[in-house]
Amino acid sequence: MQQLSQTETYSLSGLSAACLAVLVNAWKSDGEPLFASLAISGIAFAFTYACIRWTGHVFIKRGYKGRDMSKKTPVEIPEAIGLICALVYLLAIVNFLPFAFKRDIVEVTSGAGNKVNLLEAQHLETGRFLHRFPLEKLASYGFAYGTLASMTILGILDDSFDMRWRHKFFIPAFAALPMLALYFVDFGVTHVVVPLPLRQYVGELIDLGGFYYLYMAAIAIFCPNCINILAGINGIEVGQSIVIAALIAFNDILYLLPSVQPHPAADSHLFSMYLLLPFIGVSLALLKHNWFPAKVFVGDTYCYFAGMVFAVVGILGHFSKTLLLLFIPQIFNFCYSAPQLFGIVPCPRHRLPRFNARTGLLEPSVTTFSDDKPLRPIVGEALKILHKVKLLRVQQGDSGRVTETTNFTILNLWLVWRGPLREDRLAVEILAMQTAVGLLGLWVRHSCSKLLFTADNRF
Amino acid sequence: MQQLSQTETYSLSGLSAACLAVLVNAWKSDGEPLFASLAISGIAFAFTYACIRWTGHVFIKRGYKGRDMSKKTPVEIPEAIGLICALVYLLAIVNFLPFAFKRDIVEVTSGAGNKVNLLEAQHLETGRFLHRFPLEKLASYGFAYGTLASMTILGILDDSFDMRWRHKFFIPAFAALPMLALYFVDFGVTHVVVPLPLRQYVGELIDLGGFYYLYMAAIAIFCPNCINILAGINGIEVGQSIVIAALIAFNDILYLLPSVQPHPAADSHLFSMYLLLPFIGVSLALLKHNWFPAKVFVGDTYCYFAGMVFAVVGILGHFSKTLLLLFIPQIFNFCYSAPQLFGIVPCPRHRLPRFNARTGLLEPSVTTFSDDKPLRPIVGEALKILHKVKLLRVQQGDSGRVTETTNFTILNLWLVWRGPLREDRLAVEILAMQTAVGLLGLWVRHSCSKLLFTADNRF
Repeated sequence: MQQLSQTETYSLSGLSAACLAVLVNAWKSDGEPLFASLAISGIAFAFTYACIRWTGHVFIKRGYKGRDMSKKTPVEIPEAIGLICALVYLLAIVNFLPFAFKRDIVEVTSGAGNKVNLLEAQHLETGRFLHRFPLEKLASYGFAYGTLASMTILGILDDSFDMRWRHKFFIPAFAALPMLALYFVDFGVTHVVVPLPLRQYVGELIDLGGFYYLYMAAIAIFCPNCINILAGINGIEVGQSIVIAALIAFNDILYLLPSVQPHPAADSHLFSMYLLLPFIGVSLALLKHNWFPAKVFVGDTYCYFAGMVFAVVGILGHFSKTLLLLFIPQIFNFCYSAPQLFGIVPCPRHRLPRFNARTGLLEPSVTTFSDDKPLRPIVGEALKILHKVKLLRVQQGDSGRVTETTNFTILNLWLVWRGPLREDRLAVEILAMQTAVGLLGLWVRHSCSKLLFTADNRF
Repeated sequence: MQQLSQTETYSLSGLSAACLAVLVNAWKSDGEPLFASLAISGIAFAFTYACIRWTGHVFIKRGYKGRDMSKKTPVEIPEAIGLICALVYLLAIVNFLPFAFKRDIVEVTSGAGNKVNLLEAQHLETGRFLHRFPLEKLASYGFAYGTLASMTILGILDDSFDMRWRHKFFIPAFAALPMLALYFVDFGVTHVVVPLPLRQYVGELIDLGGFYYLYMAAIAIFCPNCINILAGINGIEVGQSIVIAALIAFNDILYLLPSVQPHPAADSHLFSMYLLLPFIGVSLALLKHNWFPAKVFVGDTYCYFAGMVFAVVGILGHFSKTLLLLFIPQIFNFCYSAPQLFGIVPCPRHRLPRFNARTGLLEPSVTTFSDDKPLRPIVGEALKILHKVKLLRVQQGDSGRVTETTNFTILNLWLVWRGPLREDRLAVEILAMQTAVGLLGLWVRHSCSKLLFTADNRF
């Protein structure tokens, strides 16, 4: 069992104590749930941090372990540690609930003489008078929790049993069912607003009906798998998740600024904030251990869980299109990977960048085509064009035939552009690029939506 | 991979097809959700049955396996199969939701001209008009789902990682947190009605405050652990769970009979029925494979999951005291086990009945006390008294010292009373006893509650 260092123990204890004080104060003063959420996220960070250290050896003992092949001396480190994040996160969300609704409880029980009513025996069967209580929010929390817990179960199963890729791909759809059921039962709106230029053809609104549910299921499948595919170097899975979470939170803040209140979507974005802050908390604790040189691996559980958190806030917060804008690097990576994923170009088992033990740097990994299994000529020509526009690097034999190509992932492509990089440098550059693209996406979304719709949600 | 026999395939397909027809009909006619729940439970049975057969080898491959020591030739069979039940159950509950609320959706969207309103653009942000929609029920489903999914996660962890008994014992409390949070936020009543004879002292109502939450947490810890402790022979974990579920369902029906309508608690008991029927479905499929001679083991996942289903319906349905009446054999077993569980009498690693390979029958297992580790005299005297009242069988040495005692479980006690029995015979007798005790408990509850309170809930 790996112990926390003394500095770590003091820092984490101090952080937890400060957060607890904030929590107690928030409870007593019926304060802003946002402060309580921040405080709980701080505690979640400290608890995750300590738990990763305390329980790592248990994972190794039970066979959840792997070797980091991008190191000079690969040692066995725990795998599937994202499970700890998921558990602490779920615990944090549950413990946040009383804070989220404290004000409403006070308002409901103190208003209209209900406190007196409450003491009458017959109300023991019916509970409080609830007509002023925001029950629809409560149901959202319940089903968000259910969806994320389901995703955790399926993530564990994926990390425990070897699943085939084509089975794994659809796993998130099952986990998303509670959320879709809630949407069906509660919200139920399957109309979308038509952009201005198209209104003369189809009208102001269009009812997508069942397709809207397919769209939501697609989001729920897409987000987790995207994060799972953009993986392979230390810290990239957690790093990209934190960047996305921070960008969504930034977008939420735009709707929560005092200057734009009252805003019809403020409640949805508060809900999003409450779900994202603890996620950022547990993820930072994981990043600390997964960053180069990694002490733990995150596992599919984390990738699925992170992706599903985003799908939940995007769908239940009704900003799934904006969400997709923040996934542009992942979407690019998915499309770019498609030729290998769908077998047009042969796909090796691992496509992560190749570690050059002599220089200590990462280089693009390659797939070679032997003479007995050559590429189809048309595919070869396509690869040559991609090479010319610098979207690949191929090697040609004497006959002009393509004998080798870099693998189709954004990480390899970045290394083609930038030359060999150390693992942490590559991670930093990818995350910086992702942040820049995300901010650009948000800027476009808020400045251009007025051209397409009658009003931006923000104003 | 073990295939289904042709008869099984036809039977299961036929059952599923019939249930699907009922479902489609229920959807079209906005029929009783109870029929939909029954149909979904039938499908859940068929699906669980097939999945156990299909995926058993995967469990063995991943190390979830064990040998049944009460057989002449113990072969390796899959362990922790209850996981399949839990997953199918959760899937069933989610798919039932649209049926549960179909009528309400129709009523809300077709009444008061809301259909027209729905088509106006601004409602895309706020969803349907919801003031007539039973959102408090929806929240209950969400949190019940979240609680059961959490229990499944922790059950998997328990089956995967070797946990210490003192850690395992409190696991269910964590899983129950979503439910307790819901109760705190939504219902919030911590008063209990005082029985008539005590009212002159403490008044009609008494506010238990925080103790009420401790009481609910205790129920949530108690139910899963009770089922986990009354275990050790083929079919007993699943069998007892089915008996309890059937008894709760029987009690629910008493509140749902047309002759007692409208009843204030009818909704709570419908909720309970909707949660129990699919549970009975998946459990019957498991029982078929776990019954003597067992083809699979159920694992802690099942015991925890089953117990938590009961805790959820008892607490969210507001009949936790009645629930405890149905756990009398388990409560007896727990109290009876206490001397060994708490170390007053030495406890061997396994206390299940001993298999006599010569006769093929089960006999009470015993713990022997060697000369260097004798019993404390006072404990020995207590055991002798228990022997006299036939609650144990002890062996005494020449000096009158206790040298051996049967182990403290209800299964061993039953064998002391009835003599050696075949494994399935023992299971049948225990389940019959449990059914009889449970029915008696319900009869006492409904006939005597008028003496203690001003009105029975039933009338």
